[in-house]
Order: sequence, then structure tokens, then C-alpha cells
Amino acid sequence: MGPGPSSVDPRVLEALAHPTLGHLDPAFLSLLDDLCSRLRRVYGTQNSLTLPMSGTGSLGMETCLVNLIEPGDRVLVGVNGVFGTRMCEVARRAGAEVSSVEAPWGNPLDLEDLRRALRQGPFKALCVVHAETSTGVLQDLAPLRSLADEGEALLVVDCVTSLGGLPVDLDARGIDASYSGTQKCLSCPPGLSPVSFSERAMSVVRRRRTPVQSWYTDLTLIGQYWGSERVYHHTAPINMLFALHAALCLVLEETLPVRFERHRRHALALAAGLEAMGLVLPVPKAARLPPLTLVSVPDGVDEAAVRRVLLSRHQLEIGGGLGRFAGVAWRIGLMGAGSTRDNVTLCLEALSEALREQGFHPEHDGALRAQAVLDAEESSRA
Amino acid sequence: MGPGPSSVDPRVLEALAHPTLGHLDPAFLSLLDDLCSRLRRVYGTQNSLTLPMSGTGSLGMETCLVNLIEPGDRVLVGVNGVFGTRMCEVARRAGAEVSSVEAPWGNPLDLEDLRRALRQGPFKALCVVHAETSTGVLQDLAPLRSLADEGEALLVVDCVTSLGGLPVDLDARGIDASYSGTQKCLSCPPGLSPVSFSERAMSVVRRRRTPVQSWYTDLTLIGQYWGSERVYHHTAPINMLFALHAALCLVLEETLPVRFERHRRHALALAAGLEAMGLVLPVPKAARLPPLTLVSVPDGVDEAAVRRVLLSRHQLEIGGGLGRFAGVAWRIGLMGAGSTRDNVTLCLEALSEALREQGFHPEHDGALRAQAVLDAEESSRA
Repeated sequence: MGPGPSSVDPRVLEALAHPTLGHLDPAFLSLLDDLCSRLRRVYGTQNSLTLPMSGTGSLGMETCLVNLIEPGDRVLVGVNGVFGTRMCEVARRAGAEVSSVEAPWGNPLDLEDLRRALRQGPFKALCVVHAETSTGVLQDLAPLRSLADEGEALLVVDCVTSLGGLPVDLDARGIDASYSGTQKCLSCPPGLSPVSFSERAMSVVRRRRTPVQSWYTDLTLIGQYWGSERVYHHTAPINMLFALHAALCLVLEETLPVRFERHRRHALALAAGLEAMGLVLPVPKAARLPPLTLVSVPDGVDEAAVRRVLLSRHQLEIGGGLGRFAGVAWRIGLMGAGSTRDNVTLCLEALSEALREQGFHPEHDGALRAQAVLDAEESSRA
Repeated sequence: MGPGPSSVDPRVLEALAHPTLGHLDPAFLSLLDDLCSRLRRVYGTQNSLTLPMSGTGSLGMETCLVNLIEPGDRVLVGVNGVFGTRMCEVARRAGAEVSSVEAPWGNPLDLEDLRRALRQGPFKALCVVHAETSTGVLQDLAPLRSLADEGEALLVVDCVTSLGGLPVDLDARGIDASYSGTQKCLSCPPGLSPVSFSERAMSVVRRRRTPVQSWYTDLTLIGQYWGSERVYHHTAPINMLFALHAALCLVLEETLPVRFERHRRHALALAAGLEAMGLVLPVPKAARLPPLTLVSVPDGVDEAAVRRVLLSRHQLEIGGGLGRFAGVAWRIGLMGAGSTRDNVTLCLEALSEALREQGFHPEHDGALRAQAVLDAEESSRA
């Protein structure tokens, strides 16, 4: 229940341990085709260039930025946490002239701020984080396409902690390039980064004046292995791809609407339980991210000691804060296979116990409150 | 028995499927320390910066080159196959002014050619492939350090198809930077790339005037996660690291000398068997790579049809040729767990049968010849 990696279903681990096949074995290649088609459904896209990069989420970020950016390009990045900050750094290293729109950590970006900045365009790209893993903040994607158009910008979105846990709908939202990770709401081990590029974004890549600075992430080359040509580029991470395929099967077997509703419901119950205990959730209600909840550490409580107790006594991992929230907040994940009623209860009970030992006495029983919320949710659906 | 991925021991697959831990979990971090210490032993180095990059072998290549190269640096690359060619491309994209020393595919680089080129130095780096996976050619590492010194160059070596199958001895050979892959002689699934940098190479990285163009592969940042600081950089590919740890345990349990001797012996027997059948091995005897044997396709034989028969009838994969050898040669791997007497026999028998069906009649029984060679080898050791 940290900010990822999330719990992995035993069926995904079983697929991971399938005997390794060759990266040009026909049986493996047909699995890849099926994987991409499932990935498109989860991403909500028809984009032909939709595939998992052979590295973790940060390689996906780098892939999106280095394929689109040429030296001197102007790029606008929304920054309200670690991952927006990282996009600036990666874009700068790709030679971009980077501007940013900042929002306080724990809050979403302000649309008027974005609009004002975009009017200073044109920009090659507007880069936004959908689900800020460092703060548990959700950015509404709906207004971004028309905003990006005001700056004549491609729209690049980080979906690392949203893909598979809430709608990303690339095509409906007019997103040109997106990347994600396998170890969050897809509940697959870390190691791959699904990316998707619109036809418009790919035509920008094809029309570059300079080569992509990274050979390993050059999508014009990688697309030739994943496409019908099957031209060898690098050896695919076979077993991780077995696992991702199995994870995508489970996502689609559950169906996206049911999965998204599960993430929403358990996050709502967790938040209600935490607040019943008297804990403060710094993120405004409307911007809370279902897969990841930010909780302030009460005064006088040793946050690392609490995490150590949860881990050693309950085999329960929760995350510390990052950046401006380091030492003053926890991040509790309810992602993929980990988003369950039992986990909500376990976490609230274990946290109550650990907090009491640190001298913080919860106002109400958080686990009971969470269960009441879930019961109400379930009876309203019945 | 292709050019990799090689067969994976069931114990490695079991480790791969271990329930995922967090990338900051103390149990996981102590496994990483043990992994690095084992990796140093296999690499033959004391280099502090020795770790697996979160991507396949080609990411390791890119890591070595982009960390060392700054725009305008002169680099000399030895080219006698696909991977030398790739190094030129990656170095160019990092802004290097690239010169190359070429040798015919199927042959090692000529030392006098290298010396002549190095005297046109200084160069930032001399880049050489130890084991050319595209041709099955071994480059002798022993003379390279003193040659590199003539060009005042760092020595960068591709050990993708040698690490764990033959000695690489980084420290004894004076190699400054090296990369490998997990899916060859280490017999782990593909997905990680072990790299090692000497203190001298790291001091070059630390003294750069410009940032490393890739944030994902910047070793000054990555070193802070793998070092005692444990600063989060990107989420480690946890399960693949479990597998690599298990694979390294098996390598060291067997002991390096025994493992190298096993690779040598089976390659010798395979070559003897192939030649007894009347097949031609284009690589000169002294430059043959134990883990990978290049065999010419006899006139009139449909090479792809032979590979299809081996795969469908015997579940046996061998590789086609690459680049200049595409369509005219096979590549047969005897790597890691796949380097066994049974595999030598199986391959020679299956190949004989498939060739006969294509109208090529082997001169002698290759499998019998190979067994005789192995018997003689074993009795001479006894």
C-alpha cells in the first residue's frame, strides 16, 4: 500500500515465470500483438504507436520528451510535484527551452495560470501530470486539449499512477503522447513503461530535422519491431511482457468501469476513515487521486517509526512523503489488486495502533467509519 | 540455442515470480547490495559503480556512451558487426565525432589497424565489442589497454555475450567502462543491463562540463540509489532484480572457471560436429566465440525453413544471420544453462535431419563426432 509497486496478482507472477521465449518466436510475436491491442483499450485509444517501452516509467517520460523535442524547442510544463519537476529536467536535457506553470504541492494546476502561460506560445508541447504520485493530486484532463491549442502545443500527459485505475481516455481527451508504468494500477511488477503517440505526434517525430538523441528510445526504430516489419531493434524484455499481458487480461476481465469504481470506492472509504481518526488530508477533496492518498503526519509523531512498525508487524508498506512533503506526510496507495476492502480496514487498524503507541489517540474508529462508507456505497448500488 | 535469450534455470524463474517488494524495503535493499557484490566477482572488478541498469543490453551501451561523451568528443569504435555499428550510431547521437576501424564481418579487429588509428588521437574513448553477437567473433582483450593508452583513450567494452561465459576480467584488462545483458551467458531473462565504471571513468563523468543528455541513465544520479544514500531515482525493476540475483548465485555456485570451461568444451564439440557434417564455420578458429557459433548455410538450403522445422518439431530455436550474414548463416548459441552436452547432440541431430530434407546430406554423423570430442575432453581432464 505504498505509492507503487502495488500488489501483484498470483496469475501475473505465474505468467512472469513462464519459460523464456525468443524475441522473434512466432508465439511470442502474436502475444505482443494481443498485448498492444489490450493496451489500447486500457488507454482508450486507437493510436497505432501504443507499446510498452523496455524500462520503467521514467524511461517512458524520457521517450515522450526526447522523441518530440528538438534543441531549442519551447516547452511548457505544469509543475506541482516531483514528476512535473522531473519533466522539466528531462526536457532541458533534450535541449528544450523550458517554461513552467507552478502550483503549490498538494494542489492541481490552475487553469487560468496555464492559459496565461500558453498565450506566450507557440510551444512545441504542453506537459502535464495526470496523477502526481508525489502528492496524490489528480489533474482534470478535460480542459487541457483546448488550452494546449491556445499555445499550438502537443499535449503530453504522465499517466503513471492513473492508467488502469481511472479513466485516461487518450483519444477523447485529445492527448498526443502519454506514458505510464506497470507497477501502479496495472498491478504488474515494475520494469516496463507503456507509451502511446497520436498520429499527429508521430508525424512530428518523423519530420524531425535532427535524430532523436537516444537510439534506445527512438520510436521510429522501435515501431519497426512492434509493427508488422518485426525488425530487430533490441531484445525485448520477454518475461516482463508475459506479465504485462496477463495483467492487462485481468484489467479487461474485470472491465474498466468496474475497476475504476472499485478504486474510487475504496479511496473514499480510506479518506473517510483517516478523517474520522482526526487525521488531515492536505489535498482538496475534488483533486484527490483514488489510487493514492496523502495524509499529514500529526505533530509529535515519528513518521518513519510508524512505517517501520507497519512493515515489521503487519507486512504493510505505506510510503513516506517526497520533496516538500518528506517527513511530514504519508502516501497510502490503493492500486490495482491492492485496492480492496480488506486493505482499507487493515491499514486503518494498523495505523491506529501505531499512532497510539506514538501518543496520538484517534478521535473515532477509522476502520469502522470506512466500513460504514463501503456498506452505504454497496447498498446504494444494489 | 539462438543468440539469446538463452535457457533460464527454473530456480531463476522461481525467483522472478517472488512476490514484489517495495524498492525501498530494507529486505530488498540488502538483496541489491549482495547482487552488486556478486556482479563485481563475475565482472572481475572492484569497481564501486557496478550495477544493473533498468533496461536491456542496448540501454547499457547507451549508458556507457552518453555518460562519457560530451558534444564534440572524438571517439574511436572498432566495427566488425552489428554491435560495433550500433556503438557508432549511439556515440554520434551523443554528439561525438566518431572514427571507426573496420574489419570484415566474421573476423576480429586487426591490432595494427587499431594502433594506426589510435595514433591519430587523442580520443575520449576506444570502444570495442568483446563478443560480437552478430558474427560469433571473439576479440582478444589483452592488448587493448596499452593500445588505448596510445590514443589517451578510455577503454569501453561490450561484454553482452561474454559476461558469465568467458573471462572478462575488467580490472586485469584495464577496462574503464563495460556493459552486458542478462539474457546471454548469465541465463536470466532479458531486461537488465549490468554496467561497470572504473574510478577513472567515473571521475570523467563527474567532471563533465555539460549534463548527461539522458536523465534516466545519468550514473551520478543512479549511483545515489545504489550507494548508501538510497536516494530515489526511478522505481527499480524489482522482480527482474530478484531473477538476476538468483542467476548470479548460480554462476558463482558453479564457479567461474568451471563455467568458462563448460562453455569452451561444448562449443568445441559443436564446431567439430558441424564441420564433420561438412558445414563451414566462417570465423577463424582462434577467434570463435564459445557461447555463439556462426555456420554458413549450404548452397540451395532454405535457411528460414530449417529454422522453422527445428522450432516446430524440436522446440529448438537457433538464430538467423544478421546484417551481412542475413540469409546466409545461422547463429547457434550455447549460453549459460543452455551450454550442455544434450543440447549439442540435440542440435546436431535435428539440424542433420532438417538439412537432409532440404537435399543436403551431411558427410559424417555430427552428433557422434561431437560426443567423441566431449569424451576425449572429459577423459583428458580425469
